[in-house]
Amino acid sequence: MEKINKGDCFELDTRFTQAQVNAFADCSLDNNPIHVNEEYAAKTPFGRPIVHGFLAASVFSRVFGTKWPGEGTIYMSQQMSFRAPVFVEHDYVARFEVLEVDTQKHRGIIKCSLVDKANDKEVITGEAKLMHTERF
Amino acid sequence: MEKINKGDCFELDTRFTQAQVNAFADCSLDNNPIHVNEEYAAKTPFGRPIVHGFLAASVFSRVFGTKWPGEGTIYMSQQMSFRAPVFVEHDYVARFEVLEVDTQKHRGIIKCSLVDKANDKEVITGEAKLMHTERF
Repeated sequence: MEKINKGDCFELDTRFTQAQVNAFADCSLDNNPIHVNEEYAAKTPFGRPIVHGFLAASVFSRVFGTKWPGEGTIYMSQQMSFRAPVFVEHDYVARFEVLEVDTQKHRGIIKCSLVDKANDKEVITGEAKLMHTERF
Repeated sequence: MEKINKGDCFELDTRFTQAQVNAFADCSLDNNPIHVNEEYAAKTPFGRPIVHGFLAASVFSRVFGTKWPGEGTIYMSQQMSFRAPVFVEHDYVARFEVLEVDTQKHRGIIKCSLVDKANDKEVITGEAKLMHTERF
């Protein structure tokens, strides 16, 4: 299995639908109207429904667990800063860069961000610690 | 609106069903079989399906946005460490304690944990930064 090294990068385009947001509200029980009620959201400074931070940032988890490093990843920790609202039906790209690798402990520290494709602005930034016995 | 002060605590019992986990897999597109495939999960060191870290920790977001501080909360950041697997149909309690409050900037730093009710073991630990113009 190919090793992941310091400096390696990965990215994935992503987009969230109102249906995904509604489904997340149902399964997480986080039914804050800012996410699911268009009328309510219109009266907030955001002007329209925003994606739950945890649903938006779950693209990091999805990439780690299913794509890069992929199956076998142990998710140790995740820091995330919510810098700007994430809107439904808008194009984003999740970007990743390996900051450090410990090949003895099979651990990697990954810089993660969710970026608005329209203006290249970071809307979520963060850092993850992962373990993968074969890839690190 | 009642102020939240340093040292204040909050807690909420929580439990995750396989249906919630499957719904989260669908809306987050994180369909790692460790979460949704009982046969696959049985062959892993965990022995049975585990809840996505992001679904489990979303109880923090749910509490902040809907209960404490509640509506009007701006979620600035969340750190979380996944210390042990979170299992479906098992009782947990989400615990919160206010570490710091900045009444000028209306910000609070909150210690958060998800605790296994059977043995009082922390399965997720973390820290959140919030803003709420009335409660901090």
